[in-house]
Amino acid sequence: MLSPAIVQLIDRLTCLPGVGRKTAQRMALYLLEHNKTGGLALADAMQHALKVVKNCSSCRNLTEQDQCRICADSRRDSSQLCVVESPSDVMAVEQSGSYRGHYFVLMGHLSPLDGVGPDDLGVPLLLERAKQGFTEVIIATNPTVEGEATANYISEKLKALDIPVSRIAHGVPMGGELEYIDGGTLTHALNSRQRL
Amino acid sequence: MLSPAIVQLIDRLTCLPGVGRKTAQRMALYLLEHNKTGGLALADAMQHALKVVKNCSSCRNLTEQDQCRICADSRRDSSQLCVVESPSDVMAVEQSGSYRGHYFVLMGHLSPLDGVGPDDLGVPLLLERAKQGFTEVIIATNPTVEGEATANYISEKLKALDIPVSRIAHGVPMGGELEYIDGGTLTHALNSRQRL
Repeated sequence: MLSPAIVQLIDRLTCLPGVGRKTAQRMALYLLEHNKTGGLALADAMQHALKVVKNCSSCRNLTEQDQCRICADSRRDSSQLCVVESPSDVMAVEQSGSYRGHYFVLMGHLSPLDGVGPDDLGVPLLLERAKQGFTEVIIATNPTVEGEATANYISEKLKALDIPVSRIAHGVPMGGELEYIDGGTLTHALNSRQRL
Repeated sequence: MLSPAIVQLIDRLTCLPGVGRKTAQRMALYLLEHNKTGGLALADAMQHALKVVKNCSSCRNLTEQDQCRICADSRRDSSQLCVVESPSDVMAVEQSGSYRGHYFVLMGHLSPLDGVGPDDLGVPLLLERAKQGFTEVIIATNPTVEGEATANYISEKLKALDIPVSRIAHGVPMGGELEYIDGGTLTHALNSRQRL
């Protein structure tokens, strides 16, 4: 019933995360019926971003320049390096406003089953970078099985180079209620208790 | 923190229906990190569709040709014309498999407050088309306030031309339970009861 160009657009919209056929159809018809200008601008922005955005040569975060804004910013604290899994983690830490050091973005986590090894995460580049005068490397990978495995692997490598390593704290989130916290988190919170 | 190209992509993704900033950010980072090929193909399909897709010259449905596939199909029943609000309504009726006639797509409904009048809905074209040998015009606009107003307006115009007009039935949906049906629908179902 629909013309081939519309069917193709619907098909390709489903490559977006969280977009199924029904949502894709709604998006395609919306753009065609009500917002051609917005759609063309979106297509341009998509092509432009996908062409120019690459990984920062120092921290692997996404950027258009050779170095990302944080790496290029001389006002950042150059004694601390925070290792995270993805660019959105960098944004989350930045939005907290509590960290002024540099970052290293792994762009994933160790996952042998998917063929993701230390080289894919840029671990050699991280070790090289960590030697450049950082007094502390903070590992902030996610507290998932893969994130923990990645944190362990990286901390062993860094310890071998005599670089002080730390891991962000895991426990009951601020404003959370013990009643609703899962057992694993509570166990961790109890084991990591700090003397007052 | 993010480079201008990524910020622009996120901004423009929010023009899609149902996509807010957080979803747009997730989509942009997904395309940049994991699916550059898919993203470029999507941008191409979007540009192509937005450039070539226009309204069918007979029924106003979206198509790349001068006439859409349904209008160009000589096997369709040329005695019935079904008037719907949008291309997705055509798809819904087609998927039901119970109609073999032609369509006319209004691409909206009468909405004086938004400045949408009969001309914007192609009513003159519809009246012109309806005169071409159709023995029945079925009005299938949505049973909303605007859809009903549109149906009334069109049926008055068609009656003035002596063309038989009908309206699809509204009532309790198949498989529905009376207990959960709203009062308005039940009132309509009772008033439109048919003798067995």
